[in-house]
Amino acid sequence: MVNMKASVRFEPEGRKVSVDIGCTLLEASAQAGVRIRSECGGKGICGKCRVIIVESQKIAEISRNEREILSPTELGRGYRLACCTKVMGDLVVFVPSQSRIVIRRIQAEGIERPVKLEPAIKKYHLVLPKPTLQDIRPDFERVETALKQKGFKTIEIERNLLSELPEVLRRAEWNVTVTILDGRQIISVEEGNTENMAYGFAVDIGTSKIVGYLVDLVSGNLLSIKSMENPQIAYGEDVISRINCTLTRTNALNELQKAVIKAINQLILDACLDANVKPEEIYEIVVVGNTAMHHIFLGIQPRGLVFAPYVPAIKRSINVKADSLKLKANKNAYIHVLPVIAGFVGADAIADVLATGIYEMDDVSLLMDVGTNGEIFVGNRYDLVCCSCAAGPAFEGMHIEFGMKAVTGAIEKIKINPHTYDVEYEVIGKAKPIGICGSGIIDAVAELFRCGIIDNTGKFKKDIKTKRLRMIGGVPKFVVAWKSESGINTHITISQKDIQEILLAKAAMHAGAEILMREKELSEKDLAHVYVAGGFGRYINPKSAVIIGLIPDVPIEKISFVGNTAISGAKMALISTEIRKTAEKLSEKIRYIELMAHPDFRKEFISSLFIPHRNPNKYRSISRALGGC
Amino acid sequence: MVNMKASVRFEPEGRKVSVDIGCTLLEASAQAGVRIRSECGGKGICGKCRVIIVESQKIAEISRNEREILSPTELGRGYRLACCTKVMGDLVVFVPSQSRIVIRRIQAEGIERPVKLEPAIKKYHLVLPKPTLQDIRPDFERVETALKQKGFKTIEIERNLLSELPEVLRRAEWNVTVTILDGRQIISVEEGNTENMAYGFAVDIGTSKIVGYLVDLVSGNLLSIKSMENPQIAYGEDVISRINCTLTRTNALNELQKAVIKAINQLILDACLDANVKPEEIYEIVVVGNTAMHHIFLGIQPRGLVFAPYVPAIKRSINVKADSLKLKANKNAYIHVLPVIAGFVGADAIADVLATGIYEMDDVSLLMDVGTNGEIFVGNRYDLVCCSCAAGPAFEGMHIEFGMKAVTGAIEKIKINPHTYDVEYEVIGKAKPIGICGSGIIDAVAELFRCGIIDNTGKFKKDIKTKRLRMIGGVPKFVVAWKSESGINTHITISQKDIQEILLAKAAMHAGAEILMREKELSEKDLAHVYVAGGFGRYINPKSAVIIGLIPDVPIEKISFVGNTAISGAKMALISTEIRKTAEKLSEKIRYIELMAHPDFRKEFISSLFIPHRNPNKYRSISRALGGC
Repeated sequence: MVNMKASVRFEPEGRKVSVDIGCTLLEASAQAGVRIRSECGGKGICGKCRVIIVESQKIAEISRNEREILSPTELGRGYRLACCTKVMGDLVVFVPSQSRIVIRRIQAEGIERPVKLEPAIKKYHLVLPKPTLQDIRPDFERVETALKQKGFKTIEIERNLLSELPEVLRRAEWNVTVTILDGRQIISVEEGNTENMAYGFAVDIGTSKIVGYLVDLVSGNLLSIKSMENPQIAYGEDVISRINCTLTRTNALNELQKAVIKAINQLILDACLDANVKPEEIYEIVVVGNTAMHHIFLGIQPRGLVFAPYVPAIKRSINVKADSLKLKANKNAYIHVLPVIAGFVGADAIADVLATGIYEMDDVSLLMDVGTNGEIFVGNRYDLVCCSCAAGPAFEGMHIEFGMKAVTGAIEKIKINPHTYDVEYEVIGKAKPIGICGSGIIDAVAELFRCGIIDNTGKFKKDIKTKRLRMIGGVPKFVVAWKSESGINTHITISQKDIQEILLAKAAMHAGAEILMREKELSEKDLAHVYVAGGFGRYINPKSAVIIGLIPDVPIEKISFVGNTAISGAKMALISTEIRKTAEKLSEKIRYIELMAHPDFRKEFISSLFIPHRNPNKYRSISRALGGC
Repeated sequence: MVNMKASVRFEPEGRKVSVDIGCTLLEASAQAGVRIRSECGGKGICGKCRVIIVESQKIAEISRNEREILSPTELGRGYRLACCTKVMGDLVVFVPSQSRIVIRRIQAEGIERPVKLEPAIKKYHLVLPKPTLQDIRPDFERVETALKQKGFKTIEIERNLLSELPEVLRRAEWNVTVTILDGRQIISVEEGNTENMAYGFAVDIGTSKIVGYLVDLVSGNLLSIKSMENPQIAYGEDVISRINCTLTRTNALNELQKAVIKAINQLILDACLDANVKPEEIYEIVVVGNTAMHHIFLGIQPRGLVFAPYVPAIKRSINVKADSLKLKANKNAYIHVLPVIAGFVGADAIADVLATGIYEMDDVSLLMDVGTNGEIFVGNRYDLVCCSCAAGPAFEGMHIEFGMKAVTGAIEKIKINPHTYDVEYEVIGKAKPIGICGSGIIDAVAELFRCGIIDNTGKFKKDIKTKRLRMIGGVPKFVVAWKSESGINTHITISQKDIQEILLAKAAMHAGAEILMREKELSEKDLAHVYVAGGFGRYINPKSAVIIGLIPDVPIEKISFVGNTAISGAKMALISTEIRKTAEKLSEKIRYIELMAHPDFRKEFISSLFIPHRNPNKYRSISRALGGC
């Protein structure tokens, strides 16, 4: 069969692309560079990829999934799901703003502790004696001797450098700068003195976003921060969808790997442009990411991560040549990938531990990295335990009717008047609201509880008199923003189901923390610090987080929102080999508790489903503050 | 300009090839797989590439070089030099047998000492416990633990194996065989038990020929020997021509490297076919070769080797992945290249030392590897000195009017009747003689001297009465084979110039040996053993070699012709890591004497130009045997 082509135009941009007949509109949009939301990874389940067919030569029939998800009115107005609609001929498609992935408020930075500058690579300027009949040392051994005089012991050299060494040395008239990795491997030989030009790049590959730091390895200074959406989102918004892709579709692992590498290369180029650095002056790259991102980045089949008992392919740190993964850097640059702890506690979590420094403290800390997958640590310098919990993507706005990521148009803060039940809210980008992001949803649930609109099981109370609480489609919903205020021509609400989603997510996090504390025979009052990490953490109202019972009941001043500590931990590892050794030790030493196998987890999870908790004694400050409310 | 093509047919094979207009017939012949001799590397100097144009559409003008080398008769009969003749249109070319590289008598084997079997790679069969919720060790750490139970300490794994590890382990149901390199690196993970299938390949890259051994690494047994001409011969017959190629022509280094790798791959495939082994079951390859071949094989610019002070790019041994050089073997097989000593004392010479074992003896040995470039060692377990001497290619038949390599049609043994001056000779392949190879030439000079036809300076004596000694073209020549006996329709002779070439070559070797003995304050009588290595060595008549003064005057029984010890030394290194350590130590320890910088060399060289030597006391046995002759 010959592949037939069709032309698809995406409005309002007017981007046009020629695609194979039979591909989906979601695939076509990716080719056109138009970014359409897809939380289910194109399975026709999430309904986020609604598009409107404006003109069509020929169009595929409406699928069963579309009939289930789209209302007859929507279908009548030309709405379709981009992932379900196959291109059968030329088309013009309108992509509404709710269906778009828009510029996100990215919390790229995290707290960082000062470390001694001792990067894995260092440059040395050498002025070598020329060979004579009395001094016939080979080229390499000539370089080696000069380095041994500087205190090096064993010296090795990349084979591709050896190939060109005779020419480089002679062209440079024996005046060169060598770059040494790990105190023994020559990875670059440059003409003249370039000792002051040595750069490194740190990367955090998040499921949703990728952040990169360009760092001067001579001074340790941060030169540029760049970040972007993880383009793998086109293959599913969570790691499980992406891993499933690799299991069901040939070559998907390779495509996912290529996508992330292309993105990192873009960050490198952007950062280099910013700082007037050449990519070939980047001699080392440190990478962190959750275990799934880690495996996919390295091209390792992540199969083990989706089937019990969820084992990764490898724990320890990995060094590979940047070239072997086609990363843009010096041709002999290396990538150091920090170790992981378990299938769902990755190198990013190790970086969190490094950046917060909880492994060095005498005091006990609780560290929670809140995200689709939550990672939790409890302990101090003597012992750390950790677990992961599938908090679900509710905190990132997913599985919530009007949920969305923290991008323009998202309601991020909510306050309810306990007397009038009136709502004040703040919107990212000062735009008309089109949905609610994680921090807004946490605020909403906390405020609904504080104002007595919902009870401690999250149920709307029947006796509340406000027009904001209404039945819509048979379901009780609380109106946060009226249709007249919103940018999507409909009320923006929080439904009973939305509240349940949030409670499920917070219960998972809380139960995880509780199990870890119990493992160490500790309680809330033993916690000297609570660190909440994750890009979205900085915008959460800590009080709301305590009220809903996401964070244990500790004084607010003990809670620190530390931001994206994954990237700051990666930067620390980039400039310090000591930190890498620490990371390796931590990956060995930190005890992983598998919640699924823990006898108390289920019970604790159910208790945590209450607001703030089934046991009011665990949240005495809340009970006191709210009184009988 | 558009590249125009022309068709060239080579007779008598009838091989046809389409080539770019403007390429030479020598280049066209290489493309057609027709192997034409070229000792000067296509410079129009050696005159060995004579071909006859049978039919031509259009033909390039006769060049000045061709007018100098070819006689008017030859030119009249359509003779041209293939390297000087550009293809201007379709052609039919006849390649006479003298101009062909023919199947050579290859002395592929050398003596070898037994070594303890301890190869760098070893296979281990592992039956691993499956992961459970109680045992969530990652895949790699699961393998690592099993190996640590077998006594391993640090274990690493190739990244490409790590990528597929999760799938292989599960497909194999946790029953696998791992291949470990150097006791720490996993280079292969195979399903089931394949412990008994582990092979290695040893290669000697000679300037003229390449020899390969396929070895069973479980038993240490040699399974197959394969050898072939070094296809780089098309770029020049000696290393200097080939290196010059790389300096004058872009990409020539790459072409030379590709040519040798293609040849080695052919040897691997042939040997595997022979022994019913799969190339992917070859896990390690050991390579030796002279320093130029070593550099070119590794793609290292050999520039330093042709300019004083002749320094190599590197001395020490090198490990590279077979895959990076595109050698056919297991995808993670490694290549171990033995160390070199100096620009003209290569890894093959180290292998000679290993195979003869002179580095372990209390007695003093002289080791001479006779070839275009000679390598000489003197010493014992306490101290070894070495040098290289540009003996020139006379011993391989080059620069000798009727000289040729030891291939079919070469006169390899000569005996002259001291009374009648009649000649008896033996021809390789029992063919009609077409030339004389090295051993034949040594015999000829020794016999001419023994019979008093030449004096001790190599000059023909004026008073010898035989029709075999005659002036041809104004030059005195001795007829070895009459025109009527020969296969080339002309007398096969030894000229005054030929004798001078041999004397220059033998003087270089002898002077080198003499300087080394002097360096160690030794004389001939201190030598317990004289080892003569090199593929051609086995066919030399030792008496002739002593008579002409190539080998010092020692009792014949002390002389051993040890054959191709380069390949046998390589095999020893393949099956023994101890031998590799020894090689590394030898490369550091053996003292290299640069003859060019030695104050006595010139004088000793001139003394050695006499037959057997200017000082008769150095060859008392010869003086005694020949009396006043």
